[in-house]
Amino acid sequence: MGDMAVDWSKLVIGMLGGDKREQEIARLAAATGADVRAHGFPWPEGGIAGVRHLDDPSAVLAGAQFGLFPIPGIAANGALFAPAASAPIIPTLEMLAGMVAPAHIILGWADKNLKAHADALGIAIHEYEWDRALMLRRTPAIIEGLLKIVIENTAITIHGSTVCVVGQGTIGAVLARYLVALGAHTHVVARNPEQRAAAFVVGASPHTLDELPALAPHLDMLFSTVPSRVVGADILERLPKSALLVDLAAPPGGIDFEAAQKLGLKAIWGRGLGSRAPVTVGASQWSGIRARIEAILAAAA
Amino acid sequence: MGDMAVDWSKLVIGMLGGDKREQEIARLAAATGADVRAHGFPWPEGGIAGVRHLDDPSAVLAGAQFGLFPIPGIAANGALFAPAASAPIIPTLEMLAGMVAPAHIILGWADKNLKAHADALGIAIHEYEWDRALMLRRTPAIIEGLLKIVIENTAITIHGSTVCVVGQGTIGAVLARYLVALGAHTHVVARNPEQRAAAFVVGASPHTLDELPALAPHLDMLFSTVPSRVVGADILERLPKSALLVDLAAPPGGIDFEAAQKLGLKAIWGRGLGSRAPVTVGASQWSGIRARIEAILAAAA
Amino acid sequence: MGDMAVDWSKLVIGMLGGDKREQEIARLAAATGADVRAHGFPWPEGGIAGVRHLDDPSAVLAGAQFGLFPIPGIAANGALFAPAASAPIIPTLEMLAGMVAPAHIILGWADKNLKAHADALGIAIHEYEWDRALMLRRTPAIIEGLLKIVIENTAITIHGSTVCVVGQGTIGAVLARYLVALGAHTHVVARNPEQRAAAFVVGASPHTLDELPALAPHLDMLFSTVPSRVVGADILERLPKSALLVDLAAPPGGIDFEAAQKLGLKAIWGRGLGSRAPVTVGASQWSGIRARIEAILAAAA
Amino acid sequence: MGDMAVDWSKLVIGMLGGDKREQEIARLAAATGADVRAHGFPWPEGGIAGVRHLDDPSAVLAGAQFGLFPIPGIAANGALFAPAASAPIIPTLEMLAGMVAPAHIILGWADKNLKAHADALGIAIHEYEWDRALMLRRTPAIIEGLLKIVIENTAITIHGSTVCVVGQGTIGAVLARYLVALGAHTHVVARNPEQRAAAFVVGASPHTLDELPALAPHLDMLFSTVPSRVVGADILERLPKSALLVDLAAPPGGIDFEAAQKLGLKAIWGRGLGSRAPVTVGASQWSGIRARIEAILAAAA
Repeated sequence: MGDMAVDWSKLVIGMLGGDKREQEIARLAAATGADVRAHGFPWPEGGIAGVRHLDDPSAVLAGAQFGLFPIPGIAANGALFAPAASAPIIPTLEMLAGMVAPAHIILGWADKNLKAHADALGIAIHEYEWDRALMLRRTPAIIEGLLKIVIENTAITIHGSTVCVVGQGTIGAVLARYLVALGAHTHVVARNPEQRAAAFVVGASPHTLDELPALAPHLDMLFSTVPSRVVGADILERLPKSALLVDLAAPPGGIDFEAAQKLGLKAIWGRGLGSRAPVTVGASQWSGIRARIEAILAAAA
Repeated sequence: MGDMAVDWSKLVIGMLGGDKREQEIARLAAATGADVRAHGFPWPEGGIAGVRHLDDPSAVLAGAQFGLFPIPGIAANGALFAPAASAPIIPTLEMLAGMVAPAHIILGWADKNLKAHADALGIAIHEYEWDRALMLRRTPAIIEGLLKIVIENTAITIHGSTVCVVGQGTIGAVLARYLVALGAHTHVVARNPEQRAAAFVVGASPHTLDELPALAPHLDMLFSTVPSRVVGADILERLPKSALLVDLAAPPGGIDFEAAQKLGLKAIWGRGLGSRAPVTVGASQWSGIRARIEAILAAAA
Repeated sequence: MGDMAVDWSKLVIGMLGGDKREQEIARLAAATGADVRAHGFPWPEGGIAGVRHLDDPSAVLAGAQFGLFPIPGIAANGALFAPAASAPIIPTLEMLAGMVAPAHIILGWADKNLKAHADALGIAIHEYEWDRALMLRRTPAIIEGLLKIVIENTAITIHGSTVCVVGQGTIGAVLARYLVALGAHTHVVARNPEQRAAAFVVGASPHTLDELPALAPHLDMLFSTVPSRVVGADILERLPKSALLVDLAAPPGGIDFEAAQKLGLKAIWGRGLGSRAPVTVGASQWSGIRARIEAILAAAA
Repeated sequence: MGDMAVDWSKLVIGMLGGDKREQEIARLAAATGADVRAHGFPWPEGGIAGVRHLDDPSAVLAGAQFGLFPIPGIAANGALFAPAASAPIIPTLEMLAGMVAPAHIILGWADKNLKAHADALGIAIHEYEWDRALMLRRTPAIIEGLLKIVIENTAITIHGSTVCVVGQGTIGAVLARYLVALGAHTHVVARNPEQRAAAFVVGASPHTLDELPALAPHLDMLFSTVPSRVVGADILERLPKSALLVDLAAPPGGIDFEAAQKLGLKAIWGRGLGSRAPVTVGASQWSGIRARIEAILAAAA
C-alpha cells in the first residue's frame, strides 16, 4: 500500500487562502511534480518554483482533484482564512463545481455550507484540525513564539524565575518541559492526576486547581492553556504587580483579561503563535497532507 | 470532601506480602496514627515505628477494615507476591473472614479466588495496578534501575552512543527523554504517529517499525518496551555483535531471546526494575493508597 | 570579616548614568538603609523607594563615600554610558571633589581622565567589567535576548535546526548548551581543544576553525562570539541564502557584515543584549557591588 | 603540518600495561597499519586484529619507536599500572634500550627512574595525565560509573532527591549538570565565585563552604570532588542517617571516612571510575595519543 508510488505528475492541486505556511506547502507540493495553482496567501517576490499564482480562485480549483484549504478554519461569512487576500475567498458551489471527480478537499475544518456543497458535488472532505500528531509537531514553533513574547514583556530572565503553567494538554505539557529546560522553577496546575504525575517526572511541581491561589503570590509568570475561565479575579489579585500573564487558549481563554486590566497586570493573548516558523510548520503540515493524499489514492487503487 | 479529615487513629490496617516498598508504605501508614500490622515483607532490623510485625497472616487481617496487598499480583497457586516470606501467603476465606465490615482490600489486582472470597464476605476490592498516574510516578525509579543495568553491561558510554527505544508507552516515552538528556543519539520506533511526533519534539528521531531493520546496524543499544515479539531474528541479525539488548516489557516481551543467544548478542531481561528505589516508590504508592482510603471513607460518610 | 555587619544607614551612595539595570541597583542599594542619590538613568514614573533623583550630577556625588557608575564604560569624550540622560555626564575633577574621603568609585572600567582625577583626589577606583562571575550570571539574560532576535528573524524553529556557535568563551559555551537544550543540532567551532572537549560533553559537535567551510552549507544559523574576523566571505559564500547570522562579539566582531550584505544574507548585530532583563541583571550586579562595598569597609576596619 | 600524512605502516608501537582501555587503543593503533605489540593488559579471547601479544615486555619494546604506557601512573616499586599482568612490569634501562632512535614514550606520567633511564638513552617522554581536554572527554564515563554506584546504594531515586556536589572542578561541574538533568535538587559548594556563578547558570543552587553545615540536614546524597578534607565530622553529624556519601577525589579525598563509619553513614570511594566504558575512553585516549604521534613526526620532518 505505502509501496504503491503515487504518480504526482498526474495530479492537479489547487490551494486557496492561508499565510506564509502555505508558501512552503506549495513549494513542497510542486516539488513532487504535481501541477500546483495557488491564490490567497502572501505571494513571495521571486515566486515559488513550479507553482502558478492565479488571480481567480475559481481558476485555481478548475480541473483540480485536490483542494488544499488552510487549517485556521472558516469565518462566519464562510470565507477561508486568508489575511493577505485582496478579497474574501468563499468556496461557493460554482467554484467547487470546477473540480474533477473524484475530488478531495483537505483542510482544517469545514463549515456547514462547505459540507453541503461538497455533499451535493460528491467531493470528499478531509479535516485535520484535530490531528494530534501534527499539533504535537507544531508545539516547538508555538512555544518559541511564546518565548519571544515572554522575553519582550519581562524585566527578569526566564532562568531563575518562578512560573506556572495552567493546563497540561498538548501545548501545556511541552511548555512545562521547555520552562524546566530554560531554568525556571516551574509549577503546573492540572485537574488530571496523570497529567500531574507526568509534570512531576519532567521536573515541574504539580498542583491541583485548589492550590493555585496559594501559589499565585510567588509567581513571576502565569501561562494559561485551558479554554475555560480558571484564572479569575481571585487568582489575579494575589499575583505580584510585576507578573506577566499569557493566555494560549482559544477564546474565551482561561484568564479574565478585564480583571487583569483593572488590577494593572500585564496580560497578553498568545493567539496567532501558529504563524511562527512558517517554513518548519508548513513542512510538517505538508507531510501530513501528503500522507493523506497517498492514503486516498491507495484506497482508490 | 477532601476537607473532611480522616480520623486515622481509628483505623486498623493489615499489610500482607510485598518487598522493601512495603516497609515505606507501612512506615507512612503508621505515621498517620493508624494501627498497622504487617507480615510477609522483609522486616528491617530496627523495626518500623508504630508497625507491629506478626508471624501469622490471619492475625494481621483480624479486626482490620483495610487490607493492603502488594502491586505485583498473585501467583498461579493464589499466593501474594512475597519473595521474603517464609511460606506462601494465600488469602483464604477464613483469613479474610477476620476483617471488620465495611472491609476493603487495596491491591494491584485480584485473582478469581480472592474476588470470590471477597464477594462472599462483602469485602470491597480496589485494584490499582492500572493506575497510570502511579505508573508515571514510578518511571524515574524504573529508568534509573535500567541505567544501572546498561552501565554494568556496556563498554561504551550512553553519552555519544546510538540507541533505539522500541515502543512509546508510559515507560518508553520517559526512557527516550532520559536517553536524550544523557547525550545518546536516540531513535524511537512507534506504530502510533502521535507517539512519533512526541518523540520528535523531545529530540529523538522517530521511525515506523518498517524502518527498524535499516536502523539496526547503527545501534549500540536497543530497548524494547512492547509486550509483543517485534524484535525477531531479522532485526537481531543486523545488530552489531557488541550491541546490548534490554527487554522492559512483561513476558513474552518484544525480543527473541533465543535468537539473540544464538547470535551471541547480550540480551537482558529488565524485569523487576520496580524494586529499585523502594523508599521513593513506596512513598508514591502510599500517596495513592492514602487517597483511595480517604475517598472510600468520604463516600461512606 | 564577612560577619562584621556594615552599618548601611551611615553610607551615602551616588549613582550616575546607566540604564534600567540601575533602577534595580538603586532600589536594592536603598533597601539596605543607605542614603542613595541618582542621576542619568531612566527614572521610573512612580520613583524608587528611598532613592532621591537629582538633576545635577555634582549634587549626586557631593557628600558620597561611594560612587556607582555603569558597566558599559566611558565614551571617547569622557562621558559615562547614559543613553537616557539629557546631557553627557562627564565626571570632572570638580564633580569628584565633592566626594567624602575615603571615597570609592565602583564601575565597569575607568578611562585615563577619570583615573587621573581619582589619583589626584585620593579616590579609589574599583573596576568590575572583567568580573567573570558577574559575566556568567548575566549569560542567561544575554542568551534569552538573543533567542528573541533569532525567533524574530527566522522562518524555521530552533528545534530541529542545524546551528553553529563560533567561539567557546563564557557566552559561547552557555549558548551552545541552550541550543542543545532547545533541540538544535549544535555545532561548535573553537580553537582550544579543551573548549571542544567541553562542547562535546554537553552534546554539541566540536570542530576546529578549519572545518567551518565544510560545515557552512548545512547551517541554518551561525552565531559568532569571537572578537576577530573569522567569518569572512569564504565562509559566507558557502552558507544557504536563508541562513541567519548573529554577531555577539564586541566590534569589529567576527562576521564580515559587508560581505554578508553583498551576498544577501541576513546578518544581525547582537550588541546591547546586556540590557535584556534589567531587574535580574541589576540584581546580580548589585550583589557584586554590595560584596565589594563590604570588602572595602571590612579592609578599612 | 596536519596535512603531512604519517606513514603508519612504517611505525612500530609497543604497548605495556593497562586495562581494558588498552584493548581499544591497541585495536585503533593497529587499524592505522602500524606494527603493534602488546603485553600486560587483559588479552581478549579472540585476540585483537593486527596486534601481537608477547609474553616478554622487553620483546614488546625491542625495535619500537613509540612506547605507550598507561595513564594511571607508576607504583612505588616502579611498576606500570597493570592489574591483569602476571608479574610487575618495571621499565628497566635494559628493556628501554631496545627501542629504536628517535624513540618516544607516551604515558600518563613518569617517575624519577623512568625519566633517568629515558634521559640516559635519549628517549623523549610525553606525559598526558594532565591533558584537560582528555579529562573532559572522559567525564561522561566517570559520571556514568558514579551513577551506577549511586543507584546501587540508595533506596530513593536521584529524581526528586536533594543532593550536593562539593567542588566544581572538571568532574564536579559536569556532575552538577548531570544531576540537574536527572531531576535532582542540586546544590553546589565551591570556594570560587566563578564556579558558583557557573553552577547557578546550569540550574544548581550555589553555596560557599560556610553554608554546607546548614545545608547538610537536607541532603540525601553528598558527592565530594576535592582532594582536601572539607567534609569532616562537623558536616557528617548533621547529615540524615540515610544519606549516601561518595568521594570522587584522589586520596586522601574530601570525606572523613572514619568519622562517617562511626556515625553509621554509608560512604563510598568512587575511585577507579576511570575504568568504566573502556571502549569509549580508550578511543578518546587514542585520539589524543594519535595527535601526539602526528605532532612528533611532523616536528621531526
